[in-house]
Amino acid sequence: MMESKKYILTEKDIPTAWYNVLPDMPTKPRPILNPQTKQPFKEEELYPLFAKEVVKQELNTTDRWIEIPEEVREMYKIWRPTPLVRARGLEKLLDTPAHIYFKNESVSPVGSHKLNSAIPQAYYCKKEGVTNITTETGAGQWGAALSLAAKHFGLELAVYMVKVSYHQKPYRRSIMQTYGAQVIASPSMSTRAGRKMITDNPNYQGSLGMAISEAVELAMATPNCKYTLGSVLNHVSLHQTVIGLEAEKQMEMAGEYPDVVIGCFGGGSNFCGITYPFIRHNFSGERNARFIAAEPASCPKLTRGVFQYDFGDEAGYTPMIPMRTLGHNFSPANIHAGGLRYHGAGSVPSQLIEDGLIEAVDIPQLETFKAATMFAQSEGIIPAPESSHAISAAIREALKAKEEGVQKAILFNLSGHGLIDMASYDRYFAGDLTNYEIPEEELLKNTRDLEKLI
Amino acid sequence: MMESKKYILTEKDIPTAWYNVLPDMPTKPRPILNPQTKQPFKEEELYPLFAKEVVKQELNTTDRWIEIPEEVREMYKIWRPTPLVRARGLEKLLDTPAHIYFKNESVSPVGSHKLNSAIPQAYYCKKEGVTNITTETGAGQWGAALSLAAKHFGLELAVYMVKVSYHQKPYRRSIMQTYGAQVIASPSMSTRAGRKMITDNPNYQGSLGMAISEAVELAMATPNCKYTLGSVLNHVSLHQTVIGLEAEKQMEMAGEYPDVVIGCFGGGSNFCGITYPFIRHNFSGERNARFIAAEPASCPKLTRGVFQYDFGDEAGYTPMIPMRTLGHNFSPANIHAGGLRYHGAGSVPSQLIEDGLIEAVDIPQLETFKAATMFAQSEGIIPAPESSHAISAAIREALKAKEEGVQKAILFNLSGHGLIDMASYDRYFAGDLTNYEIPEEELLKNTRDLEKLI
Repeated sequence: MMESKKYILTEKDIPTAWYNVLPDMPTKPRPILNPQTKQPFKEEELYPLFAKEVVKQELNTTDRWIEIPEEVREMYKIWRPTPLVRARGLEKLLDTPAHIYFKNESVSPVGSHKLNSAIPQAYYCKKEGVTNITTETGAGQWGAALSLAAKHFGLELAVYMVKVSYHQKPYRRSIMQTYGAQVIASPSMSTRAGRKMITDNPNYQGSLGMAISEAVELAMATPNCKYTLGSVLNHVSLHQTVIGLEAEKQMEMAGEYPDVVIGCFGGGSNFCGITYPFIRHNFSGERNARFIAAEPASCPKLTRGVFQYDFGDEAGYTPMIPMRTLGHNFSPANIHAGGLRYHGAGSVPSQLIEDGLIEAVDIPQLETFKAATMFAQSEGIIPAPESSHAISAAIREALKAKEEGVQKAILFNLSGHGLIDMASYDRYFAGDLTNYEIPEEELLKNTRDLEKLI
Repeated sequence: MMESKKYILTEKDIPTAWYNVLPDMPTKPRPILNPQTKQPFKEEELYPLFAKEVVKQELNTTDRWIEIPEEVREMYKIWRPTPLVRARGLEKLLDTPAHIYFKNESVSPVGSHKLNSAIPQAYYCKKEGVTNITTETGAGQWGAALSLAAKHFGLELAVYMVKVSYHQKPYRRSIMQTYGAQVIASPSMSTRAGRKMITDNPNYQGSLGMAISEAVELAMATPNCKYTLGSVLNHVSLHQTVIGLEAEKQMEMAGEYPDVVIGCFGGGSNFCGITYPFIRHNFSGERNARFIAAEPASCPKLTRGVFQYDFGDEAGYTPMIPMRTLGHNFSPANIHAGGLRYHGAGSVPSQLIEDGLIEAVDIPQLETFKAATMFAQSEGIIPAPESSHAISAAIREALKAKEEGVQKAILFNLSGHGLIDMASYDRYFAGDLTNYEIPEEELLKNTRDLEKLI
């Protein structure tokens, strides 16, 4: 089975600049708004919360290429460039004429793509004299990555980890602690937002939206402290474009151009990272690839959400973002893909899907674990439950190609491995997992009053 | 901190032959004996237990180079060649003039070097028409590797996993199950050896020696079934020499030759794998490097054992091997480096240490976790508890170099990552781990009657 072919780049091929998609977009996303004034945020209004440099990147709509600082590129060299793999084992198992490629971001020391943005975010904070940073984490992939980056740059880090994942994935909490970070289960009693939630709903198992509220609140209350975010915002996707830029070169080595590019979708960071560099050739008219965001059926903001201004967090502390959203109070089911349990999509992917430039599919949990097991047995790598959504979508496309008798090239991002998620696999094999069907009425009840927000 | 430099080879640099150390040894090890006849084993006497090709390799004392089959090399390409890394982060942290290099075997899909031998062993079984294989595993690294290789070649696999690790490391059990293997906690009720042990000692937490007995017994009782072993024997070390052969080329790229080469030591597979290709230049007189095997202080066969013929397993089913041993009934303490909980060393490393050609150090458990945490924070990779013994020995050497003001090149093998061992790290941080000091009398009580065996 495993005769998979790797396409390997050298350190010289690590990109020297990130690709900023904003200048090339046919319809620019609407601006993020200050919830107090309902006006577009000015740079300096965001400085209290974020490092200045990332604010500049966040609002930059003119520069197509943003130089990667040498210190960041040096750290990228620890594991980058990552391999592109032709998944011949999976192709054989599916008996498909399609060629399936995956970009293997699981080879980073923390096991996922998240380090691509953790490093520059920690770097810019350090460079601006910040001493403390805060963040949220779902499954713990982002938290683990930021813990390592914070240790490297000598920053103190507090991580709010969504309570359900804190208990489902204790090993990832331990990883953060091994790198020296403070990890707090969210909702917690350490913030106003957390205390209110616990008081109103003592059994609430948390969400990324809640954890963001707590991390923002702590950052605002701590001297010389900034908040950092692992997804959703433009600058995070910007940093993640190293994935797609490398993959573009590697697909050239393989002598193909992808007909379909697929990423799993929580807030958008890994999907945007692998797709933007390819989307730019659609914008320019050179190419006509399809782009598929794979989200959980139990948290389907892209396929079943509304397009409205919404908060990035539950308590309403963040800027208001034009999102495909289920509402910032949407409480996602306890699926094991903790990194995808988020109510909204970033402003850019939301605009792209609105304009029909990207597609989305929603995948039930059991299908993702079936796909994950097939992938593990045919390619040798046990995927993260999040990444398994991308694998599922790739398998659907490959089977469609077989049905239609068409050869096509499918590229997906393997955003992380699942070695820390084995308890989830155990529960799947034991038959303990469900799909969490959500009735329409339940799904959209938190979006009813969104238009009143602005 | 992390400015570590990687030395990367291409697929063309994957060795085409394994290095067989036996022809070059100044004193050949004494032969392994048939316990019934007390005579050296003939090839055909071992065929019922092992694949024929590995028996030939086991007893081959004449061919310096053994060709790697193309099917095996193809599978090696999934993750090989592995990186050699200059650990500048760790050097800085220690403020040492020494240059520290590590060969990163943790990048394999199962997270350790064990796949190097699992693949050829499964391949030879398949080629000879075998349908079922059995094995033992301690921490689960070998079992996980063999599960993947067995799935690839379509073999059914039963793994006896040492009971203490079965409970300490449930995730690694899940990994084996995800790859489709049967996993049984050892001692079990499924074999005579296991039943006897459970009857005599109901609370026994198992050992590699016991698990080997059960795997051998099941193999002998099952039609068309062979037993496979992850360490100790010559053919396993032979397969592992891909590590040292690649490292040799990579040290050349770095423009240095190691003054010291270090591996952790359970049965010997990863230590032998990284050292043999370098030892051959000592044998030829070209070089004069030192070689250090790092074993747990609680299972110190190399530093405190006797040199005697002994069994490879507790029940006495295996060939008799000339070993540095603590006795096949030695019951190792429940340290978290499950892969190092083994009573004896392979015949070749035993002979080499007897002849003063390699050295050994024994490291207390707490020192290994301290070293592991330093390594994780300075190099980004969380090491396996087994590999942390090698890191500890490397740190000792680097600090000695600092004391003496000498620049030297230290190379160690990072045999695996510790992402599945985070529960052990948790216990370390909580202060729950101890060093397990063993009094001399207790340590050697199982070696008293060994000479009566032959």
